[in-house]
Amino acid sequence: MSELQIPKDLLRSVIEEMIPVHKFLGVKLLDIDHGYAKLHLAYRPELIADPRANRLHGGIIAALIDSAGGAAAITTLTSQEDKLSTIDMRVDYLEPGKADDVVAEGRIIRSGNNVIVTEMTASHQHTGEVIAQGKGVYAVKRYGNS
Amino acid sequence: MSELQIPKDLLRSVIEEMIPVHKFLGVKLLDIDHGYAKLHLAYRPELIADPRANRLHGGIIAALIDSAGGAAAITTLTSQEDKLSTIDMRVDYLEPGKADDVVAEGRIIRSGNNVIVTEMTASHQHTGEVIAQGKGVYAVKRYGNS
Amino acid sequence: MSELQIPKDLLRSVIEEMIPVHKFLGVKLLDIDHGYAKLHLAYRPELIADPRANRLHGGIIAALIDSAGGAAAITTLTSQEDKLSTIDMRVDYLEPGKADDVVAEGRIIRSGNNVIVTEMTASHQHTGEVIAQGKGVYAVKRYGNS
Amino acid sequence: MSELQIPKDLLRSVIEEMIPVHKFLGVKLLDIDHGYAKLHLAYRPELIADPRANRLHGGIIAALIDSAGGAAAITTLTSQEDKLSTIDMRVDYLEPGKADDVVAEGRIIRSGNNVIVTEMTASHQHTGEVIAQGKGVYAVKRYGNS
Repeated sequence: MSELQIPKDLLRSVIEEMIPVHKFLGVKLLDIDHGYAKLHLAYRPELIADPRANRLHGGIIAALIDSAGGAAAITTLTSQEDKLSTIDMRVDYLEPGKADDVVAEGRIIRSGNNVIVTEMTASHQHTGEVIAQGKGVYAVKRYGNS
Repeated sequence: MSELQIPKDLLRSVIEEMIPVHKFLGVKLLDIDHGYAKLHLAYRPELIADPRANRLHGGIIAALIDSAGGAAAITTLTSQEDKLSTIDMRVDYLEPGKADDVVAEGRIIRSGNNVIVTEMTASHQHTGEVIAQGKGVYAVKRYGNS
Repeated sequence: MSELQIPKDLLRSVIEEMIPVHKFLGVKLLDIDHGYAKLHLAYRPELIADPRANRLHGGIIAALIDSAGGAAAITTLTSQEDKLSTIDMRVDYLEPGKADDVVAEGRIIRSGNNVIVTEMTASHQHTGEVIAQGKGVYAVKRYGNS
Repeated sequence: MSELQIPKDLLRSVIEEMIPVHKFLGVKLLDIDHGYAKLHLAYRPELIADPRANRLHGGIIAALIDSAGGAAAITTLTSQEDKLSTIDMRVDYLEPGKADDVVAEGRIIRSGNNVIVTEMTASHQHTGEVIAQGKGVYAVKRYGNS
């Protein structure tokens, strides 16, 4: 299987509208394809950890990175009844996040029937500077027409 | 050194008032001591990832876990000028987070002059159920009177 | 299920005799029970990373920690046909490993039908000093009489 | 600084001759440059985990990956007196390791005065197949002429 089984518009609606925390943080979908997703987080002053240095909170970057890995993983689902949960995640912070929009990409690097592993990258939208990298492991429960 | 160099009330004020993302998410300090911190995140419907199952978003739990590790790490600082940044974090999710308050504890397990390693646990406040564990590595830049 | 489905003596024979790398490194089984395993690695000068400081190589400790997690995980297998593979592992090094025997314990902290998560600890046998902690995620393929 | 401060031949001698565990496992240096190292592990039957499937032990791959990250990190040292130790490591296993030689590359992705972060990749030498990826965090103690 190498094509999306769930239409892009439905995936966008799930990611942007049906996941409350994405509405709360302001996460938007920029792109999605089989095994890949790209999310956008608009900068807001509420996301700052240290007002002296005006740096983004690492945990918010981690939340976006988890969402990007999860969004890549859901592209393998075949039914809206299937369920996905994070088993573990690692984030490496390479540069301090600045007061600017963040883009996070997730890509599947290992795909099994029950377990999906993704790599993620978070970067600033305007400069392209990579601020963090991640790895995520997701469990899939398939109830659908697989 | 095994005592707090910065008074508890000041640390509480830093964690609850001066870190914008903590106000945004509603993170409160329950307890803090040398090498240890305990944070509280009140449940809100905006923190849900999957409304079908009413589960907390793993990324929000990761954010709280990062904050708990960072709060434990700042207890080693000797001056308000010192700076702390996350180098990496890992989160293992043991149980789905439910629609309930979450408490996260951070404890220092390795403490050097420049690098601090912490372990973190997130659990539901009312049941005590552990929902996630974490490890964090933090860099410290000391400018103060050390 | 909370009892060993494969007899202890058979598990010992698998771990000590049938896994070539365990014979090569000198890994022995000290204890095993449902969801738990304790391994022993005898000190040898070949395991040193830095002869100036006489410290054990971190990668060898990682190998032992992976084996301890795997040994805990195989206690959930129900048949010799079942297969286990590591999905990911994290090791945190707390103290330099000395020229002394190492004991590693693995414990299951999340157990599903397809995925098992373990925590591991490596310590020096004689002093009890903890030198490293780990987390491991293992995939299980069950062919047996489950 | 972007050039090796310690000559290549000396680094090769350190990696291949002065680290006992590298002689024990048969680790050779294929290439090294500022912020980069490439190691080789020759296949031997002793490195197998599961003789039924003839797969390499994940822990041995982890050990090689740790060595590759460390070898990349030592290229930033300025004196033979400087010391390096692993703070943490993560390994993601993408494919089972086969009965074949393994090459591991390490690259620095974050470099500070006290902490160095590397990414690593392990692949089969003849097919190029990537079998594992890693991240490592290393502490540096600098005593030398820096």
